[in-house]
Amino acid sequence: MPRFVGVANFMRLPTPTALDGLDVGIIGLPCDSGAPFRTGARFGPGAIRAISVMLRPVNPYHGNINVFEALAVGDVGDAPVVPGYLEASFERIEMAMGALVERGIIPIGIGGDHSVSLPELRALSRRHGKLALVHFDSQYFAGKRHSAGTPFRRAVEEGLVAPERSIQIGMRGSLFTPADITQSLDLGYEVVTTDEIFAAGFPALAERIRRRLGDHPAFLTFDMDFVDPASAPGVETPEAGGPTARETLQIVRGLTGLNFVGADLVEVCPSYDNVSQVTALLGATIIAEFLALLALRKRR
Amino acid sequence: MPRFVGVANFMRLPTPTALDGLDVGIIGLPCDSGAPFRTGARFGPGAIRAISVMLRPVNPYHGNINVFEALAVGDVGDAPVVPGYLEASFERIEMAMGALVERGIIPIGIGGDHSVSLPELRALSRRHGKLALVHFDSQYFAGKRHSAGTPFRRAVEEGLVAPERSIQIGMRGSLFTPADITQSLDLGYEVVTTDEIFAAGFPALAERIRRRLGDHPAFLTFDMDFVDPASAPGVETPEAGGPTARETLQIVRGLTGLNFVGADLVEVCPSYDNVSQVTALLGATIIAEFLALLALRKRR
Amino acid sequence: MPRFVGVANFMRLPTPTALDGLDVGIIGLPCDSGAPFRTGARFGPGAIRAISVMLRPVNPYHGNINVFEALAVGDVGDAPVVPGYLEASFERIEMAMGALVERGIIPIGIGGDHSVSLPELRALSRRHGKLALVHFDSQYFAGKRHSAGTPFRRAVEEGLVAPERSIQIGMRGSLFTPADITQSLDLGYEVVTTDEIFAAGFPALAERIRRRLGDHPAFLTFDMDFVDPASAPGVETPEAGGPTARETLQIVRGLTGLNFVGADLVEVCPSYDNVSQVTALLGATIIAEFLALLALRKRR
Amino acid sequence: MPRFVGVANFMRLPTPTALDGLDVGIIGLPCDSGAPFRTGARFGPGAIRAISVMLRPVNPYHGNINVFEALAVGDVGDAPVVPGYLEASFERIEMAMGALVERGIIPIGIGGDHSVSLPELRALSRRHGKLALVHFDSQYFAGKRHSAGTPFRRAVEEGLVAPERSIQIGMRGSLFTPADITQSLDLGYEVVTTDEIFAAGFPALAERIRRRLGDHPAFLTFDMDFVDPASAPGVETPEAGGPTARETLQIVRGLTGLNFVGADLVEVCPSYDNVSQVTALLGATIIAEFLALLALRKRR
Amino acid sequence: MPRFVGVANFMRLPTPTALDGLDVGIIGLPCDSGAPFRTGARFGPGAIRAISVMLRPVNPYHGNINVFEALAVGDVGDAPVVPGYLEASFERIEMAMGALVERGIIPIGIGGDHSVSLPELRALSRRHGKLALVHFDSQYFAGKRHSAGTPFRRAVEEGLVAPERSIQIGMRGSLFTPADITQSLDLGYEVVTTDEIFAAGFPALAERIRRRLGDHPAFLTFDMDFVDPASAPGVETPEAGGPTARETLQIVRGLTGLNFVGADLVEVCPSYDNVSQVTALLGATIIAEFLALLALRKRR
Amino acid sequence: MPRFVGVANFMRLPTPTALDGLDVGIIGLPCDSGAPFRTGARFGPGAIRAISVMLRPVNPYHGNINVFEALAVGDVGDAPVVPGYLEASFERIEMAMGALVERGIIPIGIGGDHSVSLPELRALSRRHGKLALVHFDSQYFAGKRHSAGTPFRRAVEEGLVAPERSIQIGMRGSLFTPADITQSLDLGYEVVTTDEIFAAGFPALAERIRRRLGDHPAFLTFDMDFVDPASAPGVETPEAGGPTARETLQIVRGLTGLNFVGADLVEVCPSYDNVSQVTALLGATIIAEFLALLALRKRR
Repeated sequence: MPRFVGVANFMRLPTPTALDGLDVGIIGLPCDSGAPFRTGARFGPGAIRAISVMLRPVNPYHGNINVFEALAVGDVGDAPVVPGYLEASFERIEMAMGALVERGIIPIGIGGDHSVSLPELRALSRRHGKLALVHFDSQYFAGKRHSAGTPFRRAVEEGLVAPERSIQIGMRGSLFTPADITQSLDLGYEVVTTDEIFAAGFPALAERIRRRLGDHPAFLTFDMDFVDPASAPGVETPEAGGPTARETLQIVRGLTGLNFVGADLVEVCPSYDNVSQVTALLGATIIAEFLALLALRKRR
Repeated sequence: MPRFVGVANFMRLPTPTALDGLDVGIIGLPCDSGAPFRTGARFGPGAIRAISVMLRPVNPYHGNINVFEALAVGDVGDAPVVPGYLEASFERIEMAMGALVERGIIPIGIGGDHSVSLPELRALSRRHGKLALVHFDSQYFAGKRHSAGTPFRRAVEEGLVAPERSIQIGMRGSLFTPADITQSLDLGYEVVTTDEIFAAGFPALAERIRRRLGDHPAFLTFDMDFVDPASAPGVETPEAGGPTARETLQIVRGLTGLNFVGADLVEVCPSYDNVSQVTALLGATIIAEFLALLALRKRR
Repeated sequence: MPRFVGVANFMRLPTPTALDGLDVGIIGLPCDSGAPFRTGARFGPGAIRAISVMLRPVNPYHGNINVFEALAVGDVGDAPVVPGYLEASFERIEMAMGALVERGIIPIGIGGDHSVSLPELRALSRRHGKLALVHFDSQYFAGKRHSAGTPFRRAVEEGLVAPERSIQIGMRGSLFTPADITQSLDLGYEVVTTDEIFAAGFPALAERIRRRLGDHPAFLTFDMDFVDPASAPGVETPEAGGPTARETLQIVRGLTGLNFVGADLVEVCPSYDNVSQVTALLGATIIAEFLALLALRKRR
Repeated sequence: MPRFVGVANFMRLPTPTALDGLDVGIIGLPCDSGAPFRTGARFGPGAIRAISVMLRPVNPYHGNINVFEALAVGDVGDAPVVPGYLEASFERIEMAMGALVERGIIPIGIGGDHSVSLPELRALSRRHGKLALVHFDSQYFAGKRHSAGTPFRRAVEEGLVAPERSIQIGMRGSLFTPADITQSLDLGYEVVTTDEIFAAGFPALAERIRRRLGDHPAFLTFDMDFVDPASAPGVETPEAGGPTARETLQIVRGLTGLNFVGADLVEVCPSYDNVSQVTALLGATIIAEFLALLALRKRR
Repeated sequence: MPRFVGVANFMRLPTPTALDGLDVGIIGLPCDSGAPFRTGARFGPGAIRAISVMLRPVNPYHGNINVFEALAVGDVGDAPVVPGYLEASFERIEMAMGALVERGIIPIGIGGDHSVSLPELRALSRRHGKLALVHFDSQYFAGKRHSAGTPFRRAVEEGLVAPERSIQIGMRGSLFTPADITQSLDLGYEVVTTDEIFAAGFPALAERIRRRLGDHPAFLTFDMDFVDPASAPGVETPEAGGPTARETLQIVRGLTGLNFVGADLVEVCPSYDNVSQVTALLGATIIAEFLALLALRKRR
Repeated sequence: MPRFVGVANFMRLPTPTALDGLDVGIIGLPCDSGAPFRTGARFGPGAIRAISVMLRPVNPYHGNINVFEALAVGDVGDAPVVPGYLEASFERIEMAMGALVERGIIPIGIGGDHSVSLPELRALSRRHGKLALVHFDSQYFAGKRHSAGTPFRRAVEEGLVAPERSIQIGMRGSLFTPADITQSLDLGYEVVTTDEIFAAGFPALAERIRRRLGDHPAFLTFDMDFVDPASAPGVETPEAGGPTARETLQIVRGLTGLNFVGADLVEVCPSYDNVSQVTALLGATIIAEFLALLALRKRR
């Protein structure tokens, strides 16, 4: 069947008739009420689904593992949101995520803007306690003024995150004040700038992440603006000077040996993804690589 | 629930679990192997579904009829096709259409290029005999060289169509030879040019169509290039100088009192539909108006 | 000086150093938190300013009046908003509008989504009491679910609007329920559908509006989706089948003899305005025509 | 042969090996140095050629005349230009046009911005004396400041044009000063606004043009901004509120009985023609209609 | 003469009046009937020609060789194709290629989708016997289901290719099954993944290719999806994570010392090449680099 | 205040009411009359201003320096130009630049095409004598035929530049003739190709530049086509195979210790910058990095 035939779920997965039995649930979080600059990430889940039909189930970077043989993965649709009312949207997202988490299903949220991580963490924390974060982002917490940039500060304040087990990776570019940096450090996060990624090399980065997190229940939050705008133009707040798609995939493939209990990929903004939708394609590919990491872990 | 939430079926219809019980089946026909110029109509069904979430069930132009209360309508997905092999694609389309027709379900095909009408008519003719055509198109049969333009000539030759009960509406623009016109007439079709539509007025056109078709089992085939490129830029073979969207909808709303047993809407080509996708929107709206015509008929 | 030189204010107006002395204030309202479908109207004010440099001060449709000789017009910049928090955004918009209204300056708001009309009406009503509305829109109040569609219902409930002096013009297309229509009527509005506009003719429409409003303090609210998507593709909720740009301008030019104390033009969504930005151009032209109406009134 | 095969000359004409024997020469004038606002009309000839492959030789609006049987038409390529140096560009254009005119070939220039009309008229006037102009444009001479707007004033001053035999059609929109209008009248032109076109009707317009020009050697100059931006978004200076494509073609088809010795079609600006290139398509269609007018005249 | 003047042949080459005397023939193969996902590569040859006017004849990477002094290169236009009928299209392509090959002209085909390589190899094999392939592609043979992905399997089966002299370079990303890899190996190909390219370095890759092919008559087939989508967004089946344009050009410049008798560059899909057409530009540049390789070989 | 609120000056700087007291003046130079291929750089200053609101004042690459605390920077608007008349445009640009230079203000010009460097150098040279150039460009002087490519040849001839203190960096791609290279060398420039940048490494390049220029009054001229088209698609003459955005920023950040008295960044062509405007973003970021270099120098 040609890949353009049919209504597109993520990677052409069937729509599950029930949640029970799933290992992993893909869930769209079409909330862009928190967008600080460009907006339209509400159409991010749809764009990622549409291009994800190009992806195939076997991952050659981890021993030709067939992801869908190792894991029961379902695309459970979108969480409802209330445009213009972030708090009300958060409640609905938390409820939808909770329905997965309480069944032991690992949720993978597709944003939406980065504000969605807060209700995701609320839902996950109820089951897993404080979470270790692996957080890819081009900007420091304080670098994104307005609501989409504050979820992680609030997550620490609400006790959802264990900052001493967390690491933020990829910051670059200009700051509002020098406090943008110290704020993250003061909260207890470890911080790795884009320059430091390349200075140390990718294997060293992976090792550093593993050392930081250990086997703590972990959440991967991937802001597509981590990637350079040439490879990911369709984001809310592009920042020049990041890794390429090839480098990004190498980094993600290195995240083995971690105890992920959830993930999200956020800030895909199709209105700005030119015609070719390379951001959506890369986002879908990163999710597929994350699925392989989960499959590997389960197989062991 | 905001309209951008969820995976988009046509007008947010649920995916039917079984065909039985449906009155009408919406079916994507993502075949563009017959495209004579611009191509990419394989993505037409997806684009029409995506924008159709904007449409609502009640039609105020026909007594506020609620289409989905009057009719059981289901979006049955796409027919499979074989890119590069028109004949093989036609077989698959005919089979998928046949599954609807043989259950008494009225199929509404979403193209795809205009070549898909041939297998549709093959499937319908097996149940209904020769069909009366209401055919909206900017070009004469012979004006579209290559395969996407020839389905109706072949349909007559195969005995699928009753030309004396059929009418082609909207031709305009230049010709390869004067025979482009006479060919349609020689086959027995009635022909109404765009200029004649406006000279006679829309009510007269509707009356003329009704006189021509009577209560014969009818098939509506709507090529989006009937509409002016300002209102429908995203087509395979745009022809300057057609009706606007408002005029087009008035014409379609006038097609009451006919005995439609099927329809298609073809040549939506999203790659050329600019950013705003007005062609897909208009196409979806025309299908919704056609559903209202079916609902009206059933109610009587 | 070529029109592409310099930083663009509306129609190349100078930035006023103080509000005092202005007759009219152009103010951007870059709020799109209430967008029910497509979003990005936060960039509407910028797009309208950028293309408005094409417009010239003399209006030949009203006796060659030079708008800027008749009126002191200033572009006062944008009201601040809080993305994701509609209520907080409304407070800031109301305050910015209030600063104009309390000085006797006629505000012309550039949206942003249609939710901005509510805080505008709050600010205006404090000075002028209940306002008469001339409301151009393709959709009934209830046809736009979610926040951007409810300002006028709320405006009536808050006593900001005199529905018996108000008229809504341009509705068309499908409905959620028949109550979409009756709701507007029950609130006391007069309602003119797109079909009725054309059935009666533009001069009759203008007369009907004048009869309805008399010399009551009036607010013009112009939703760009009133216009057909061919002429205004860049809107949040396009609805096929509306008037063309030429027809729209004729209608707006007919609104003489009314006592306008404010206006807005909303829902310009540049991300969907294709490349050519015809929606922004038409929006800017409509505002320029409205300025001419104000200039005419003042001259008398 | 499918229409997308091969390197595109205008309407798939062969490249002539010599000028002699041609009745009509299509010539690209890729000069945009005079563009007052949007620019890039240098790519206009290429865009028109590329889409013109859709057009066919037989014109059903004038007795099914086959244009290429009645006339020897050749696409002679582009005139060279010197970017940034209008005067030097004019010299090269005049020379290229002269090579056609002196052989008795009717030139049809494809712009390029409107400044190219000046060197065209210089070349034509050497053979034909003062020319009668049929000039379609949305703006008065003075409405287009800077060089692209002044060719006709200069053409009168240089004695290339007979203003008492000339008519300008389609002006609309705002003015710099009331003198924008009187300037054209003072030069001796007849002026028909867009509103007047519709008030009098198309047959009356055609009659008025014929009365004005008689059998004087005539030049048709067609600025694509005459057309509404919905139908012609890809122009240098769009002006909202013009005729649609269908109306435009009806007007052009009415220009029978005139003694055309040359023509141009200018201001097609592909960078702003969205994706669908409807401006280029309409421009090519207008040229094809003009060819039919020439063919008709020759046949008589 | 500015580079935007005139009708564009490849690198502004003159259209040859006869084939005889050419060393190399550039030929468009506008066939996209085999496209497995995105389509529209029929417009690839035109897009590459249009942007190729930017390229200049002297190549500084190989001793400032002037390609057009060393070689007689002609742009011979496009092979005709039959949309929707792959086999019939292949016959026409083979015939057009054959006309070059039988005259000893080295053909460089511009796709079109990758299916065109099969008829090219048929034509070349008649003269040269089994060909050694240098095949750049992001996907394994089996990774591209449907017709555009199968030409090389069929070419081996038809005896057109010497797999033991052939090498496929650049595969990456997910697989349908592990057999995707083994299938290529079982056919006898050597396989170099994207990761292996970078692990070994570009000089080692070039050496490996030379060792594999020796002086066997060789065919270069370059699928633009070899390149990362950031540098080549306009392809049929983008695969995230490939080499950049700079890396790609370094790799191609290293292919010295081989005995090329033909080449193609395929899958340029202008509808998806955003506005800037960087894929077409890179494609044209790769062809120019390949011309330099041929020129170098001839000079020796 | 969200960054999308308000009329955009560069980095949201206030419009200065007077020039006196400024250290640095940002000035738009919207001249594209010299564009040799793609055009529309007249809209470059506006595009860079619009996206520059994303940038923040503190630069972490140089000790967290706050640029706007160290320097008084003002956005002084655009220089007027005369479309189609390069020489007249140059006079106006020189005058506008002169107003800054004579007050001791360091000008940073935003192009416009590369021809604007000539009048800039004329204005600067009157105060500083012959200038040392750091010139980033993908093409040799002679590689850009027509006017936009010749400013530096003319600048040497007019005695505005000290070639023995100047260096051109980034050339790559094909040549018209081998003399393209020697011409630069014969004029006395030092030349570093793209390949040489990477062979020697970025620190060595910075050292080489510092050695070449010493403390001579220097002018940085940055042609955005230095960057690879994947990272900078929106330029006039893209050349495949350049550095990425990340590499480019590393190179620019290395330019410490130089005595800059002015700079420009040219050839941003928004019509070709796809939707995401990554070229404008990178251009704005480079200017911000240059401001940090000036701030660093001043602080010492």
